Amino acid sequence: MRERVFNFSAGPSVLPVEVMQSAADNMLNYGDSGMSVMEMSHRSKPFEKIIQDAEANLRTLLEIPDSYDVLFVQGGATLVFAMIPLNLMTGSGKADYIVTGQWAGKAFEEAAKLGDARIVATSKEQKFSFIPKVKPDEYRSDADYVHITWNNTIYGTKYPAVPDTGGLTLVTDMSSSILSERVDVSKYDCIYAGAQKNIGPAGLSIIIIKKELVGRAKENTPTYLDFKTHADNGSLYNTPPAWCIYIAGEVFKLLLERGGVAAMEEINKRKAAKLYDYIDGSKLYKAPAAKEDRSLMNVVFVTGDEALDKKFVAEADSEGLVQLNGHRTIGGMRASIYNAMPEEGIDKLIAFMQRFEGANL
Amino acid sequence: MRERVFNFSAGPSVLPVEVMQSAADNMLNYGDSGMSVMEMSHRSKPFEKIIQDAEANLRTLLEIPDSYDVLFVQGGATLVFAMIPLNLMTGSGKADYIVTGQWAGKAFEEAAKLGDARIVATSKEQKFSFIPKVKPDEYRSDADYVHITWNNTIYGTKYPAVPDTGGLTLVTDMSSSILSERVDVSKYDCIYAGAQKNIGPAGLSIIIIKKELVGRAKENTPTYLDFKTHADNGSLYNTPPAWCIYIAGEVFKLLLERGGVAAMEEINKRKAAKLYDYIDGSKLYKAPAAKEDRSLMNVVFVTGDEALDKKFVAEADSEGLVQLNGHRTIGGMRASIYNAMPEEGIDKLIAFMQRFEGANL
Repeated sequence: MRERVFNFSAGPSVLPVEVMQSAADNMLNYGDSGMSVMEMSHRSKPFEKIIQDAEANLRTLLEIPDSYDVLFVQGGATLVFAMIPLNLMTGSGKADYIVTGQWAGKAFEEAAKLGDARIVATSKEQKFSFIPKVKPDEYRSDADYVHITWNNTIYGTKYPAVPDTGGLTLVTDMSSSILSERVDVSKYDCIYAGAQKNIGPAGLSIIIIKKELVGRAKENTPTYLDFKTHADNGSLYNTPPAWCIYIAGEVFKLLLERGGVAAMEEINKRKAAKLYDYIDGSKLYKAPAAKEDRSLMNVVFVTGDEALDKKFVAEADSEGLVQLNGHRTIGGMRASIYNAMPEEGIDKLIAFMQRFEGANL
Repeated sequence: MRERVFNFSAGPSVLPVEVMQSAADNMLNYGDSGMSVMEMSHRSKPFEKIIQDAEANLRTLLEIPDSYDVLFVQGGATLVFAMIPLNLMTGSGKADYIVTGQWAGKAFEEAAKLGDARIVATSKEQKFSFIPKVKPDEYRSDADYVHITWNNTIYGTKYPAVPDTGGLTLVTDMSSSILSERVDVSKYDCIYAGAQKNIGPAGLSIIIIKKELVGRAKENTPTYLDFKTHADNGSLYNTPPAWCIYIAGEVFKLLLERGGVAAMEEINKRKAAKLYDYIDGSKLYKAPAAKEDRSLMNVVFVTGDEALDKKFVAEADSEGLVQLNGHRTIGGMRASIYNAMPEEGIDKLIAFMQRFEGANL
């Protein structure tokens, strides 16, 4: 049997071994419950504690103000893409989107179905290699919100700073960067994230939203898509994705033990710098993303030769460094180095890249 | 620590020990992948095999014709309640609902938001204690579909036979009975079910739908809510609830090994008959559901004395027979005895009921 690999998948992705080991140990009998978390009524005391602790620990990790709700929902970011306009595009019916990648584009398309959504800026013509700078007066002053995608998983870019919207409501998809660096939640009106990168297994999304923005959904919004449904019921209107919430909660506990998000940020910056520095100094590899907009989580690089890229991915895989292929739509390589990727994984990857460069340059 | 209990929860509910043990054993390294199923890219070969095998085995178990799609989605039955009218109430815009319980009522309310939904029959005034008989000519002949809830988890009733709709499209919520008894799928146009009762962990729903009904969604339906999104992409349009699909797939394999749905039906009928026969013969307990409409999965009973019901639930719990409380809206007792509840659990429950009757009559 293959040993555990270093898994550079963009998501679902590597999780902390400690969390998975504990989940395995508690599989048939969690705590004093006499049953698996998978078998627990979501209205039972043990599960209520799991979900309440998960929320409380996430609030601590991100210093989420009490004026924000935290919602646990299903359907991935794809479903949230629709929830955003259904809940928030309800004043002027206008929303401005900055499109910095495929997911940002999909978020925009979903809003365009439901109202007057506009692309205020995009780096599409430059292969999404940077984050466009938008001045406050470029937004429509009556827009219900501005939507951005903080970290662009496919292209390896992220915002270097919170954009100034001139006071407009700011909605941010943080799926691939949440919990990787400090965030001043109060600068955003809504932050959402699919769990399957830095949080836990696929099947859970987290929405952090100002309470005053809850309860404004369009008439006849499907019940599940109305933020109020989840806010009014502590994310227990219907059966939640209990296992995913349990694992996410265990990840939150571990992050707190390890010094929280500030400690993660320090490690993540060191991990990313090590890899980018090596790439920048190499003769074979090139990172296409603009330096000032580089992602800490998804390091995208190419050799410039498609066949050589494929060879790289295959040889790396045979050495236990897996899922280094770039997104199927752009090829090349991508090393996703989320919180749970140990520094040892980066060191092993760089050592392999050096050997591969030596053999193929 | 408490030993493993007999868990009579209505859902999430008991799962097969063999499946959970195997999940624990493979937690850190599934097959030859070098990683956990929770860490796997949904575009990777091992996960593609997991989801394809799950679908194929479900098709075998339920003998699903090739003319039906099988979709794995998130959001629970609550989200499917909205998907049904968005996708199917698109001809005349009319739909007829038989309301046999709270969930049936919620399904109706979701449709009423989106079109001309009508309650064609309900047993609400009789506390949902039976399944109304509806003649084909009572439906609107131009209704886009008729919606029924096969098994009513809260009230312990189920349809004794497939209703004759006179050829109208028949949509059926089978959340709490799927895989418990044989089903002639060809008699339905759409069957759906939340997984967290007879299939696997919460966070997954399964939709079995005639292919000719896919692709008819209303204009501007959110992408995630359009059946076509999932049908065209083998349920991999976006990241699916991978862990839930994995566990569901393991349950399907186990059911096939054990003789499939016909074998389950035989066991389930024996389990339910044992319990109902004891209740019918007792002086203390009464099952309010009409005999001809009794559920095989949810056995609802009362003593007629609320305080005594509470005492029953508490004493049973202390003997390792847990979650026997009725739904929070109606009280009393409910023993949910899904496929994974061993016959030993029924025997222990009856033995306890006898002792409790002796002590309290």
